[in-house]
Amino acid sequence: MSSQMLYEGKAKKIFKTEDPSTLLVRYKDDATAFNGKKKAVIPGKGRLNNLISSKLFDVLNRKGINNHFVKRLSDNEQLVKAVEIIPLEVVVRNIAAGSLSRRLGIEEGTPLKRSIIEFYFKDDALGDPMINDDHIRMMDIADDSDLVQIRQTAQDVNRVLKEIFDGIGVLLVDFKLEFGKLKSNGGIVLADEISPDTCRLWDKATHEKLDKDVFRQDIGDLPQVYEKLLERLEDAQ
Amino acid sequence: MSSQMLYEGKAKKIFKTEDPSTLLVRYKDDATAFNGKKKAVIPGKGRLNNLISSKLFDVLNRKGINNHFVKRLSDNEQLVKAVEIIPLEVVVRNIAAGSLSRRLGIEEGTPLKRSIIEFYFKDDALGDPMINDDHIRMMDIADDSDLVQIRQTAQDVNRVLKEIFDGIGVLLVDFKLEFGKLKSNGGIVLADEISPDTCRLWDKATHEKLDKDVFRQDIGDLPQVYEKLLERLEDAQ
Ligand SMILES: Nc1ncnc2c1ncn2[C@@H]1O[C@H](COP(=O)(O)OP(=O)(O)O)[C@@H](O)[C@H]1O
Ligand SMILES: Nc1ncnc2c1ncn2[C@@H]1O[C@H](COP(=O)(O)OP(=O)(O)O)[C@@H](O)[C@H]1O
Ligand SMILES: [Mg+2]
Ligand SMILES: [Mg+2]
Repeated sequence: MSSQMLYEGKAKKIFKTEDPSTLLVRYKDDATAFNGKKKAVIPGKGRLNNLISSKLFDVLNRKGINNHFVKRLSDNEQLVKAVEIIPLEVVVRNIAAGSLSRRLGIEEGTPLKRSIIEFYFKDDALGDPMINDDHIRMMDIADDSDLVQIRQTAQDVNRVLKEIFDGIGVLLVDFKLEFGKLKSNGGIVLADEISPDTCRLWDKATHEKLDKDVFRQDIGDLPQVYEKLLERLEDAQ
Repeated sequence: MSSQMLYEGKAKKIFKTEDPSTLLVRYKDDATAFNGKKKAVIPGKGRLNNLISSKLFDVLNRKGINNHFVKRLSDNEQLVKAVEIIPLEVVVRNIAAGSLSRRLGIEEGTPLKRSIIEFYFKDDALGDPMINDDHIRMMDIADDSDLVQIRQTAQDVNRVLKEIFDGIGVLLVDFKLEFGKLKSNGGIVLADEISPDTCRLWDKATHEKLDKDVFRQDIGDLPQVYEKLLERLEDAQ
């Protein structure tokens, strides 16, 4: 592969392909946390996230939830539809954990009566601050009908993912989504990745953490944990 | 006055009266900022905020915006309707300043195309974190119809206050409101105070600060600044 790199992020590199409506994503072995303050290279992580993300996007596509995923190309690479990313981190929560627990004083592990959605402005320099619909309109990040669609899709994704993870004995605690506007027709689709880097996943029986908190909190062997999760996902189908 | 004190806050003391539907509010000379980290006693501040708040609540009542204010009793005291405070700080912004500028990287003084509303969970121990409608529902702070009414009233208050301050050459940059449910019938009304402690007010011509930022930033004589503001308000009517 010698095609032109468009963008290198913290977890992935994005390359042009011959088709302007399609991009190649290469998952890296880099791990970052706490807004880039903690860093490491973890051999095998890129492959695992690529395999897991490909699998989940594929199921979502088959369940009618349109997303950018086209196909997996190799261990570390997948083909996706080119979108203009909407600079929002859309967080869906089913169980209190992480910043929600800290900010609102709700004990980690408390199930939420109803799933909740939070929006963060995707801006590393500002530390991804939480924002509301008024801020989103003010900054022209998205309009009201975009937000209706994003919220609806986020709920749909939650329903499908909860079912998948429930089937393999895993609690879907929370996760982060990104959306983009298709270069082809401007339609909004789910993009970026869905992996243990972007979800909180706990073993249903033991509440063992099966996600990036293993790296954030130094409480386990990340490739081993992600590999076991991948196996459970593959065994399920 | 020897009636029973119900609550002492950072800026005011609340006392019972003979009528259970009515409370007495005594404004204190205490000043606090940065979530209580900066403190001072500023003689005269209680009187000034009581006079200014009484005046503004009175105008709001006359303009049909129901609020807790009954009447001013003395330099430092006013009579209000007893409410159960909804633990929300409702912030309305017309011009970028303070935490909005810092969090979103918007230069202080930038006019906002449309006014925006933010909700903060009123909880000193948690540092009044910003929350969204989903958090508010989750914590049973208010229901959807409460929020519709609170947002509408906040916009109405903004319209009336902007007009008042515009008439005396002052920019209404932003302000914080609190709402409560009337002990009598559960209806939601505007409560607490509206004063230079809870508003950002800039002189239209010079952009001189006429509010608590004078204390936060040590840039002037607070009683003198508040006194001048009160005079401008009184001259207007
Ligand atoms: N389908 C897509 N089209 C264009 N850009 C995408 C697509 N999916 C994800 N991206 C973007 O690719 C970039 C690289 O991803 P990542 O390494 O996770 O970056 P970041 O450090 O910003 O999180 C991100 O800006 C992400 O939003
Ligand atoms: N009409 C009212 N009825 C009951 N409580 C009120 C009313 N108006 C304001 N309060 C409450 O009175 C308390 C004292 O005010 P303040 O000193 O500003 O407290 P705080 O330190 O919580 O900001 C606050 O909890 C405020 O919400
Ligand atoms: Mg990313
Ligand atoms: Mg107060």
